[in-house]
Amino acid sequence: MRLTLRHTVERMVVGTDRLGGRALRHSIGAVPRPVLTSQADDFPRWYREVIAKAELADNGPVRGTMVIRPWAYAIWERIQSELDARIKAIGVENAYFPLLIPESYLRKEAEHVEGFAPELAVVTHGGGKRLEERAVVRPTSETIINASFTKWIDSYRDLPLLINNWSNIVRWELRPRLFLRTTEFLWQEGHTAHASEAEAHAFAVRVLRAVYESLLVELLALPPLVGLKTRAETFAGALRTWTLEGVMRDGKALQLGTSHELGQGFAKAFGTDFSDAEGVRRHPWQTSWAVTTRLIGALIMVHGDDRGLRLPPAVAPAQVVVLVVKDEGGAGDAARRLVDELRACGVRVRLDDRVEEPFGRRAIDWELKGAPVRVELGPRDLAEGQAALVSRARGSKEPIALDGAARRIAGALAGEQAALLADACRLIDDRLVAVDSLTDAIEQGRTGLAQLPWSAVGIHGERELANHGITVRCLRLPDGTATIDREADGLVAIVARAY
Amino acid sequence: MRLTLRHTVERMVVGTDRLGGRALRHSIGAVPRPVLTSQADDFPRWYREVIAKAELADNGPVRGTMVIRPWAYAIWERIQSELDARIKAIGVENAYFPLLIPESYLRKEAEHVEGFAPELAVVTHGGGKRLEERAVVRPTSETIINASFTKWIDSYRDLPLLINNWSNIVRWELRPRLFLRTTEFLWQEGHTAHASEAEAHAFAVRVLRAVYESLLVELLALPPLVGLKTRAETFAGALRTWTLEGVMRDGKALQLGTSHELGQGFAKAFGTDFSDAEGVRRHPWQTSWAVTTRLIGALIMVHGDDRGLRLPPAVAPAQVVVLVVKDEGGAGDAARRLVDELRACGVRVRLDDRVEEPFGRRAIDWELKGAPVRVELGPRDLAEGQAALVSRARGSKEPIALDGAARRIAGALAGEQAALLADACRLIDDRLVAVDSLTDAIEQGRTGLAQLPWSAVGIHGERELANHGITVRCLRLPDGTATIDREADGLVAIVARAY
Repeated sequence: MRLTLRHTVERMVVGTDRLGGRALRHSIGAVPRPVLTSQADDFPRWYREVIAKAELADNGPVRGTMVIRPWAYAIWERIQSELDARIKAIGVENAYFPLLIPESYLRKEAEHVEGFAPELAVVTHGGGKRLEERAVVRPTSETIINASFTKWIDSYRDLPLLINNWSNIVRWELRPRLFLRTTEFLWQEGHTAHASEAEAHAFAVRVLRAVYESLLVELLALPPLVGLKTRAETFAGALRTWTLEGVMRDGKALQLGTSHELGQGFAKAFGTDFSDAEGVRRHPWQTSWAVTTRLIGALIMVHGDDRGLRLPPAVAPAQVVVLVVKDEGGAGDAARRLVDELRACGVRVRLDDRVEEPFGRRAIDWELKGAPVRVELGPRDLAEGQAALVSRARGSKEPIALDGAARRIAGALAGEQAALLADACRLIDDRLVAVDSLTDAIEQGRTGLAQLPWSAVGIHGERELANHGITVRCLRLPDGTATIDREADGLVAIVARAY
Repeated sequence: MRLTLRHTVERMVVGTDRLGGRALRHSIGAVPRPVLTSQADDFPRWYREVIAKAELADNGPVRGTMVIRPWAYAIWERIQSELDARIKAIGVENAYFPLLIPESYLRKEAEHVEGFAPELAVVTHGGGKRLEERAVVRPTSETIINASFTKWIDSYRDLPLLINNWSNIVRWELRPRLFLRTTEFLWQEGHTAHASEAEAHAFAVRVLRAVYESLLVELLALPPLVGLKTRAETFAGALRTWTLEGVMRDGKALQLGTSHELGQGFAKAFGTDFSDAEGVRRHPWQTSWAVTTRLIGALIMVHGDDRGLRLPPAVAPAQVVVLVVKDEGGAGDAARRLVDELRACGVRVRLDDRVEEPFGRRAIDWELKGAPVRVELGPRDLAEGQAALVSRARGSKEPIALDGAARRIAGALAGEQAALLADACRLIDDRLVAVDSLTDAIEQGRTGLAQLPWSAVGIHGERELANHGITVRCLRLPDGTATIDREADGLVAIVARAY
């Protein structure tokens, strides 16, 4: 069975402004010196500086934890809202399962506990007393959710059972990085139970495509490489793991989301079964799937540039910021009118009329935060019946007539979104190179991703790559389509260093 | 200073169908025997049965934890969405703070740690090792949020700082009850910092009225008694606590929400300060405020009856359920058409066409779940061009012509909402009785709430009441207005047994 790959991306890019990214980049006002380390000089440092200066997140006091500040949390709210709609559209209902899981639950599925044991946070005391049984803070919820499924499922009429849980997760991180690897993160985890393996497989793939790929491409302008994980990289306790991998600006890969076919392992461990139409008791086939606040890290590392974050309008908390340069000659009033008009056009817009602060500093702040469009309006602009329109994606600045400006700006947002998607597609073309041998893949892995025949890698090759800090990100066919068959003719591996 | 009380409720009830609750209750189809213990026979048992049979929640495996099932979680999502809009409307931004708090943080505010120490869940091991400093699972976040505020606040220009966090909370419960007292629950907690005490006070009261009272009355049809907590009942570490108290059908009180004026205690403990306009360093004045998944328990105990839950349409996951009695003579198609028409009118509607299950059982299920309006449609109804319209709030059943039914049903939902609010107001009138003495208050406390002069209670009276399991729920003026002045002339105490 084959799954077409990247067709969504192609569809999105065709018909949009392919020249966007190549447009001449004007100098944008007075920027005396860079506020950020450049990506080329020190990418990890650039990443930390963007997060601090754009006020996205802070480290929490317990090692590896994270405070998500309002601007980044508003991005997460947009992701939640769009993702939740897609999850519900395929018939899944939300529920909530407990944070605390008895330690014995994890032990019921042997591979699962082996996978998660090193990362657990353990509660030993509650209400001033030592607990009879220790509880772990959920590192994932397959076990506790299966305990509920066992109560809820009795007949084939109860299937499919399609459940999603929005929650926080704790996995102890020894080398934390904000958004990418944090001891606590936010996510959704979907859990479903089906009467047959074929149905479970079809659902896992539907989530991969209709939920995750759709969200990544349409909302976040993050075109993923989609494929199957190798056995070594499969989720602890699953039959197979489908993955969506992103390509970052430093040439590393980032796993953006996964959809697991769990088989019957958890059902057997927890005694989850149902009577089929003939009255025979059978174990259901299950799936689980998740994306996390890590997506914010991907937004930063794919779209960010030396001036800061660049947000796709679809996910930006403010799509347009109207800056009052000086509140003289009616500029403030004109700006407020424009804000009202933009809001009436359905645009998420903010007014920045903090004229007591230097204009240049405010402009730099909004660049750092990645607001897609800035409209700068001062008394001189107003006298000419216009304002300056600055595109964060294209780095362009041009005059715009105030008359009818709101409608034109609202209409231009789709182009800003498409420009970022086109940039992200080019990034993959630049960084992903086809090679023939393990040696060439290791060389290519210094600066980007390599694609090579899976037959040239295999389990031994995976170990050799690991010695160079490289992992197989996914398996797929050479034309980019995904396949369930790990033995398929011509199967290729995408290998890379990864976050 | 006085705050007008219950005016919102009055405004809501005036002009709506005051007769709703008194309308003749028809018998609704074949109900061979009660599916629930009656409220009069055993209220706690009725409560547990409603939760189980309406599939609202289960007990989790760790003592006191809770699995929130899809129907109840969808109610919570409606509450979240409406509450979030109100919180943002007063200028508050969402953020996320860590689950795990260093134990030493709690000790920094003496009263605070004393209040919460007995309820803490403590993480002692992380990543396979004993932690150098133990971490508590947040029982509330004043301490960890103040640590961030200390970083974020430097100048009076940074104030007011208005932040809200949606999250899960753990407080070890020795006598757990689903939704009411659970070891883990979901909530929002707002935290704000202001330049002056007057501003902090005004904001705490604004939350009390424009956010919480508005939500309770308009969305949940739960008219609260609003007032000030006594010193004994004030939040650990706060100057004063404003509260919204609900009256349950068994005559007990339930605290529905609180808004605290924290003063400068946490700011001093965490070194949070700012330069005022003259450059003098000052501590900000703070507030915090929260409501929780307990609101679902209140919905059950205020609106529920011997047939199950009754949901106000504004919060119901499905406002209308269209039941196909038998899929013959085009009844199924007619039902699907009606569902489409209702959806086009903006109604949240579900189709129940599970005709392989007995009709009576499905009708009882939707009664248990509290769907506000049921439309029953079978071949006989269809032949007469009509359906049966069943109101859960009024217990009435009447024919409705199918032609134009969707618009009329959509229009009638406001009346269903008002009928429940009117019932809840009558419940308060029935259960809250004014008395003169502590002795009479104790007697009245057996079956309801008592209002008596605060001068007849005082600190000694509070202890005496406690011997009878009664607490002072709030202080206010006799006409129902709230006051900040605990020494005000004529101040009365509302006392009751409480959940």
